[in-house]
Amino acid sequence: MIVVMEERAAEELVQRVIDRLMEDRFDVHRSTGVLHTVLGGVGGPDTFDTAVVQMMEGVKEVHRVISPYKLASRAFRPEGTIVKAGKVEIGGNKVVVMAGPCSVENKDQIERSADIVADGGAQLIRGGAFKPRSSPYSFQGLGEAGLQMMREAADRRGLGVISEVMEISQIPLLSAYSDILQIGARNMQNFNLLRELGKIRKPVLLKRGPAATIEELLLSAEYILSGGNYDVILCERGIRTYETYTRNTFDVSAIPAVKKLSHLPMVGDPSHGTGRRDMVPAMARAAVAAGADALLMEVHHDPEHALSDGAQSLNPVQYMDLMKQLRALAPVLGRTL
Amino acid sequence: MIVVMEERAAEELVQRVIDRLMEDRFDVHRSTGVLHTVLGGVGGPDTFDTAVVQMMEGVKEVHRVISPYKLASRAFRPEGTIVKAGKVEIGGNKVVVMAGPCSVENKDQIERSADIVADGGAQLIRGGAFKPRSSPYSFQGLGEAGLQMMREAADRRGLGVISEVMEISQIPLLSAYSDILQIGARNMQNFNLLRELGKIRKPVLLKRGPAATIEELLLSAEYILSGGNYDVILCERGIRTYETYTRNTFDVSAIPAVKKLSHLPMVGDPSHGTGRRDMVPAMARAAVAAGADALLMEVHHDPEHALSDGAQSLNPVQYMDLMKQLRALAPVLGRTL
Amino acid sequence: MIVVMEERAAEELVQRVIDRLMEDRFDVHRSTGVLHTVLGGVGGPDTFDTAVVQMMEGVKEVHRVISPYKLASRAFRPEGTIVKAGKVEIGGNKVVVMAGPCSVENKDQIERSADIVADGGAQLIRGGAFKPRSSPYSFQGLGEAGLQMMREAADRRGLGVISEVMEISQIPLLSAYSDILQIGARNMQNFNLLRELGKIRKPVLLKRGPAATIEELLLSAEYILSGGNYDVILCERGIRTYETYTRNTFDVSAIPAVKKLSHLPMVGDPSHGTGRRDMVPAMARAAVAAGADALLMEVHHDPEHALSDGAQSLNPVQYMDLMKQLRALAPVLGRTL
Amino acid sequence: MIVVMEERAAEELVQRVIDRLMEDRFDVHRSTGVLHTVLGGVGGPDTFDTAVVQMMEGVKEVHRVISPYKLASRAFRPEGTIVKAGKVEIGGNKVVVMAGPCSVENKDQIERSADIVADGGAQLIRGGAFKPRSSPYSFQGLGEAGLQMMREAADRRGLGVISEVMEISQIPLLSAYSDILQIGARNMQNFNLLRELGKIRKPVLLKRGPAATIEELLLSAEYILSGGNYDVILCERGIRTYETYTRNTFDVSAIPAVKKLSHLPMVGDPSHGTGRRDMVPAMARAAVAAGADALLMEVHHDPEHALSDGAQSLNPVQYMDLMKQLRALAPVLGRTL
Repeated sequence: MIVVMEERAAEELVQRVIDRLMEDRFDVHRSTGVLHTVLGGVGGPDTFDTAVVQMMEGVKEVHRVISPYKLASRAFRPEGTIVKAGKVEIGGNKVVVMAGPCSVENKDQIERSADIVADGGAQLIRGGAFKPRSSPYSFQGLGEAGLQMMREAADRRGLGVISEVMEISQIPLLSAYSDILQIGARNMQNFNLLRELGKIRKPVLLKRGPAATIEELLLSAEYILSGGNYDVILCERGIRTYETYTRNTFDVSAIPAVKKLSHLPMVGDPSHGTGRRDMVPAMARAAVAAGADALLMEVHHDPEHALSDGAQSLNPVQYMDLMKQLRALAPVLGRTL
Repeated sequence: MIVVMEERAAEELVQRVIDRLMEDRFDVHRSTGVLHTVLGGVGGPDTFDTAVVQMMEGVKEVHRVISPYKLASRAFRPEGTIVKAGKVEIGGNKVVVMAGPCSVENKDQIERSADIVADGGAQLIRGGAFKPRSSPYSFQGLGEAGLQMMREAADRRGLGVISEVMEISQIPLLSAYSDILQIGARNMQNFNLLRELGKIRKPVLLKRGPAATIEELLLSAEYILSGGNYDVILCERGIRTYETYTRNTFDVSAIPAVKKLSHLPMVGDPSHGTGRRDMVPAMARAAVAAGADALLMEVHHDPEHALSDGAQSLNPVQYMDLMKQLRALAPVLGRTL
Repeated sequence: MIVVMEERAAEELVQRVIDRLMEDRFDVHRSTGVLHTVLGGVGGPDTFDTAVVQMMEGVKEVHRVISPYKLASRAFRPEGTIVKAGKVEIGGNKVVVMAGPCSVENKDQIERSADIVADGGAQLIRGGAFKPRSSPYSFQGLGEAGLQMMREAADRRGLGVISEVMEISQIPLLSAYSDILQIGARNMQNFNLLRELGKIRKPVLLKRGPAATIEELLLSAEYILSGGNYDVILCERGIRTYETYTRNTFDVSAIPAVKKLSHLPMVGDPSHGTGRRDMVPAMARAAVAAGADALLMEVHHDPEHALSDGAQSLNPVQYMDLMKQLRALAPVLGRTL
Repeated sequence: MIVVMEERAAEELVQRVIDRLMEDRFDVHRSTGVLHTVLGGVGGPDTFDTAVVQMMEGVKEVHRVISPYKLASRAFRPEGTIVKAGKVEIGGNKVVVMAGPCSVENKDQIERSADIVADGGAQLIRGGAFKPRSSPYSFQGLGEAGLQMMREAADRRGLGVISEVMEISQIPLLSAYSDILQIGARNMQNFNLLRELGKIRKPVLLKRGPAATIEELLLSAEYILSGGNYDVILCERGIRTYETYTRNTFDVSAIPAVKKLSHLPMVGDPSHGTGRRDMVPAMARAAVAAGADALLMEVHHDPEHALSDGAQSLNPVQYMDLMKQLRALAPVLGRTL
């Protein structure tokens, strides 16, 4: 930790900060400049809350030196992590596509979806059985019945399954039916849920919250990893900014950023990232060009009648066309799809 | 619902939108202008997802007309709601202060806190027993032991208790020890938790998420209200913006906005709102001047040794001084404190 | 400057950073920890671009220690600055009100405005003669004729005048008619304009840009101050966030922040800050409660027929009522109005 | 324009809005629903300020129907615009690269830069002679001498020149030396400058402001177009969000959005977009994959000694490698480079 004192801070104030740090067993190195005194604290507890010092009188700023996450950092596993979800590997050379409807709506819809998804070349089908909806009056999902339908459809076509878990009590159910458990953006800092997911042995796809920094995303991953579950996949799905033309601002740069800072696989979700079907192809290409290990996309056989997120679901023709583009794109980037 | 077609949209596209709306039993009124055709849809289901139409070919924009929340709207109870938490009334003429440490740390700390809080004139003590922390390595709270200590300290001084509930399984425990259950900002859209809180008969203080719009805050309140729990209190605690000098940007204007749009009481939390002890007094005054029904503030007998949020906790001298200022301020605004 | 190297950065990379700093005549102090090497650079040029080092291989982060602004900092004049604009003093004990229409529209309107403004107790009249409008098709202002009308109206009622300067060529004109020259939010980083205003001897009110940090606001003030014009007044007028209910998010906390970091007077503009007439009174009170030295507000004798910004202009009744509230509020805060 | 009245708004309030619209010669169509009355206003002036109605009593919301920009809209020229800058065409099938240092620093540097830029396959060289810097103490550029050096270097290697104009008085100078005049992000709403650039016959590259919506970018383009200069190129260079790992958040989705909404060519600037050399290649690829017509990038022969923006300048090796990647990428997207 580095503490920068204000210009010409009184000696007494400097001493108080030194004393405070020593209380927590930091060794303190002092460097006195013409304007500013700088203190370096070494060896104290990793969990020391630097904000405590920040507000002490005479302190200008405090900088943590040691990264707050460890297991999620690239340094922990420099070669990168490949997460195995059933037969599918995410984080390797192959760009994986996970596609499907926002929600499982009924048997016919999910069966059709599985056909479209598999015919296009995706390896996992997505579909929500428990839906987080802003309004209590919106469609909330079919629950276990939906999961069962999706699993059957997936098995028929040799697809893996990814679906969202919204609370601790749903973990066993989701684990039984899915190959990957998804944590939605709004639950990225539902720490109790994260902790429980650290105890299971199923891959978890953790979506970045709409107001979360990249560091916070990695800290949330750390919750799961520190529980012993190393199969964590991260996902960019758009952040909230002032721009309203798109539903969110799809932060493509989070993809190379996470690949640099962490060893975990990184996925792009251009459907939620833009909220607009007409922009998904361009942004899916951008995500892959920026280094995404996988794409998570919404596809619906009839988006204009989807029970949720119809605006951002590709129709079958758009999806097939996009998959064709991506198959041409991947080799240029040294990858397969 | 109003649908604006793009300039000179083809008749066929207009007709497709009309057909789509009629499928969901909307009556459609058509107005054909020189440039734009505008369609008004009336009488369809409230839960109709306007985004479905948004992405139809030829559509420029779609506007919902009916408010997505009902029970939370001012129109539902124009005279405003007063929530009773034990002996305390929130939403009436008296500005209520809820103060205390970020976390319950030990018996001595919470007993001292109760004395400071009560001596200063607050009516409820706050303190976390289950703490949502960005890092899994930070102090996570004392759990039930902490709640018990806080309840005893509060009772000794005649204070009410407010404390945070982080997941469904904690609801009975929190209900037993607290007068108000707080939902933290990161859980504002934890819909399963909201739904469960709709079933209890304890006041709930719902904090605005750091990336939540005012409308989304009211929709989250609607989850609780629609379950039958009408004792909901809302709270502004800072939103995330690009400014880094403050921890969050305390959106004071959300206070008059919520008071206009909703009948629910509105609280300001200048501690999380700013993250800086030195700015809490100014922003507490601002919140009251803008019409807040209550303040939620962090006070610690020794902030430099707090186990969490020390940077934003007032020390006892600052707190006493601020309470004095607020007592002078309230009458000028036609209120008491 | 402090450079934190990445965990176990190779010695060669550390040495390259040291060499780079020494090239620019920094003395370098090195501190080698178990995980991180930290370098302190002292004595180099103030204008050294720390970002250059940021991207060197093996560097984790770089922190500037010395504040990038000097003349604008509180340390430069700890007692604070009182700016004299004609007979009016801004930054002293008296809270100053500057009110008037968005634009000068015609003689009758500005004469009526002067009467309302003066009757309510404001000391300066505001009104734009050159208007920055997002659309080229909107009303662009009356130019010199407008300034002349406003000056006459102001003189008749003993008011000072504040009006916006949009480009260098307008400086002489604005200086002839106004007591304070306003720089609009969109010009906060129009550095050529700032530099020219540093050469004149008229007070300048500098508005914070909608995406500007507090530090950038102070750096823009530094442009004017470093040219020799010390009569600079700063103004918060709302920043751009994701919230759309208000036109901008009025960052009330910028008021105490600027008062702490700088000696310059700080003004709140709740009209642009909210964009909504119905919220101006609450936010004007909040700004004063948070320590604003002055308010800048839009008032129009008939807002529903204003040629610009009608939505955020108070009508005469609202204005008179607000002034009454503020006169009651100021003494409680130890100020006059 | 569509006006939605609040639930059960009194007839008198509805009538007042109708009267107000009719005053400005709107034809008003009224639709009375169970809850809401909706008014449609047709035929009034395009420049009517809808915000005036927004704040009238009883009004819930107002929606403009007609797009506020016309000449910039895709509908104005559905086939798209190709801007010719010297021998270079922007907006056609070929993806154009504009590369070079942030600032022209001296003759040797710009000559070397021209060699690198041309060898890599770019068609224009960029370099600032007048630099907008946040701090008055930073390097401000060489002025005309710099322009002259850059023109000579460019001519020697057959490159076009793009350079930034900061104020009206610099237009003749920039026009003499450059093939494209760049308007920096901070000047996107410097309307006087925009208006003057509408009068010249040189291509203008207009950068999106860090807090500007896509609509505002198009409105600023409208200023230039409405003056008669149709050679406008737009550029995404990152917007300001809460994320601090990158200097800005490079809004890649603005590229397909602008291509849909407007006929003007759209450029991506991944250097300013990320502020980090190590992320430029990934984001340059993403921009092209998303449909950018050109890239604007910073390259320096020795970034660690650059006088400005060294952190985001590619070194020659990185630049050559990226150009190779882009040449492989373009054909997959149906383009050349």
